[in-house]
Amino acid sequence: MLDFKLLKKDARTKARAGLLQTDHGTVRTPVFMPVGTRGSVKAVEQRELLEINAQIILGNTYHLYQRPGVDVLRSLGGLHSFISWSRPMLTDSGGFQILSLSELRKLTKDGVEFRSHIDGSYHFFTPEKIIEVERQIGADIIMVLDECPPYPAEREYIAKSVELTHSWALRCKESFVNSSQLYNYNQFLFAIIQGGTHLDLRDRSATRLIEADFDGYAIGGLAVGEPAEEMYRVTNHVTDILPEDKPRYLMGVGTPENLLEAVERGVDMFDCVMPTRNGRNAQIFTSKGVLNIKNAVYRLDEPPLDSGCDCHTCKNYSRAYLRHLFNVGEILGLQLASLHNLRFFISLMEQARLSIIEERFVEFKEETLANMDKKKKEEI
Amino acid sequence: MLDFKLLKKDARTKARAGLLQTDHGTVRTPVFMPVGTRGSVKAVEQRELLEINAQIILGNTYHLYQRPGVDVLRSLGGLHSFISWSRPMLTDSGGFQILSLSELRKLTKDGVEFRSHIDGSYHFFTPEKIIEVERQIGADIIMVLDECPPYPAEREYIAKSVELTHSWALRCKESFVNSSQLYNYNQFLFAIIQGGTHLDLRDRSATRLIEADFDGYAIGGLAVGEPAEEMYRVTNHVTDILPEDKPRYLMGVGTPENLLEAVERGVDMFDCVMPTRNGRNAQIFTSKGVLNIKNAVYRLDEPPLDSGCDCHTCKNYSRAYLRHLFNVGEILGLQLASLHNLRFFISLMEQARLSIIEERFVEFKEETLANMDKKKKEEI
Repeated sequence: MLDFKLLKKDARTKARAGLLQTDHGTVRTPVFMPVGTRGSVKAVEQRELLEINAQIILGNTYHLYQRPGVDVLRSLGGLHSFISWSRPMLTDSGGFQILSLSELRKLTKDGVEFRSHIDGSYHFFTPEKIIEVERQIGADIIMVLDECPPYPAEREYIAKSVELTHSWALRCKESFVNSSQLYNYNQFLFAIIQGGTHLDLRDRSATRLIEADFDGYAIGGLAVGEPAEEMYRVTNHVTDILPEDKPRYLMGVGTPENLLEAVERGVDMFDCVMPTRNGRNAQIFTSKGVLNIKNAVYRLDEPPLDSGCDCHTCKNYSRAYLRHLFNVGEILGLQLASLHNLRFFISLMEQARLSIIEERFVEFKEETLANMDKKKKEEI
Repeated sequence: MLDFKLLKKDARTKARAGLLQTDHGTVRTPVFMPVGTRGSVKAVEQRELLEINAQIILGNTYHLYQRPGVDVLRSLGGLHSFISWSRPMLTDSGGFQILSLSELRKLTKDGVEFRSHIDGSYHFFTPEKIIEVERQIGADIIMVLDECPPYPAEREYIAKSVELTHSWALRCKESFVNSSQLYNYNQFLFAIIQGGTHLDLRDRSATRLIEADFDGYAIGGLAVGEPAEEMYRVTNHVTDILPEDKPRYLMGVGTPENLLEAVERGVDMFDCVMPTRNGRNAQIFTSKGVLNIKNAVYRLDEPPLDSGCDCHTCKNYSRAYLRHLFNVGEILGLQLASLHNLRFFISLMEQARLSIIEERFVEFKEETLANMDKKKKEEI
């Protein structure tokens, strides 16, 4: 079983500070996990991820299975070794990507057949196959195969989907238990709770997965277009059911505000492409809100992106330089913006964690959100 | 006057090892200068340039004048400060870029009128204007405005062009002498020798520019499509005329072989986009020749790009990982390949310099070229 310790529980909210132990090191929660879908966190180099204190990064099974392929990963000693990353990793099963990216997908109770969006080749992912692939990729934490319904979807569809996802989770668990890691470290299996915005379906999904006893529990099927309040309501409901002694992971979430609201509701782990994707589109997260660095107002602007930030970008470069790099289309702009945005998300969770330990989470959250909200009132 | 010391002259060739002093530090020659056209060496961050021992980098006057514009550069304290680079810099005048990139250019004896390739705006660059702009950009070494004829061109055209370039050089010099630096360090002015592949025209260009006494001399108008032997012949001829106590810069050159041949003929400084541009196209320079890292042969290949290389890419990543990054189009591939290729060019000049000092340049050159040539015989 995954070694997860709760160090502190907030007295006024459900926020918690924990320690998650893997053979590649400790993860301090709440934690934001940068997304390295295809074995690279886009435009950010591995030593820079260390520098901004990325404790754990993601890979995606659907993408890595296709390229470089599991034979390459096995031959090179697994994903950690392949990408030279010695800290913990987590792989999503890719269920979401199969459904959103691949063509001619066919969902059966046995699994999902799909055509690769790369080369058109046919593949069939069963729960057993996913575990086999995730064993070969070799992340510390691996996710079950799930179906993530779109939003909105008919209740009936979601209810069926919950059943399917549940049966797949059990088969993943069995397959996981009956197989061994291929590399010299342990792997752990997380289940994914589905059920859309229907609390009773979430109940049904969660209670039975908890019974089956996984190393951790993810909340899937959120951040797919529903209003933020719905996301918070569902998250709050699910964390009420989840066991305290297991880590909770809210998949694909979200904005800085989403993260703080979910921490308040007892979530420990997050991943999102927002810091890197938005960074590549010149959108910069700062303690005073979001700015678009291509804006002409930054043409002569000497301060860093965020004066309070400790990242390499902010310690060395002006907004004027970043604006220029984006304006002329230099790759360095993507690098520096992605690095900063990731540091912003990681630092936000570090600060949240510290505030929980120091019993001032509510104040921290309120002050942080109030500061960010200033963007609406003034040019920062 | 620019402080340039010759430390060693090779007894068997015209190769030389020198020390060039600027207010931003010393440049050890022969030296390869990475190209940072628009204030960024493409896909390589400034601290990485320090790490691979880039002693001096280039900027381009034509590009920087347009974006970010001299008002931005002045306001941010000059190009060094704008891009956070504390080592020496050199700006090309952009004559070459005006002729190759801009539209509706009109060459008169006074200067060159052109329409920006960015926004279609009209500009008129005179020798005086170029010096004014290069003062505002603030590189340590600045180049005169020149006309670089295409290859091939009529002898008559080249002869006229030499006269034009000469008169512009004198006006640049006068303008330079009668103006001051805007920032708290000295700037130095290099002349550019033209004349195509006509040795008598090169003579005419060089002797009169030498008379006018510049801080250094560039050989322009080569590496524009002429055979390598022609480049070597012209270079050899010009360095025979040039004063020993001034640095010599062969503009826009070239391949590793070009560099070594030119060092043998007495050249001290080089710049070329080849390491970064080719790197972005998956072409990797190694001590055993060039390889295309997208090639399927590297799919499972564990060694680094170049086993003898001391760059961060080679110390941390396999060919298989680089191949994957290029295969899926990850930006990190561009970053790691550019970093390695630049280190290869810089290291080549470092090794050449050491071999000159240790009186084994000819052996070094022969061995290096023989090793690189192996690419033709075997898959590396």
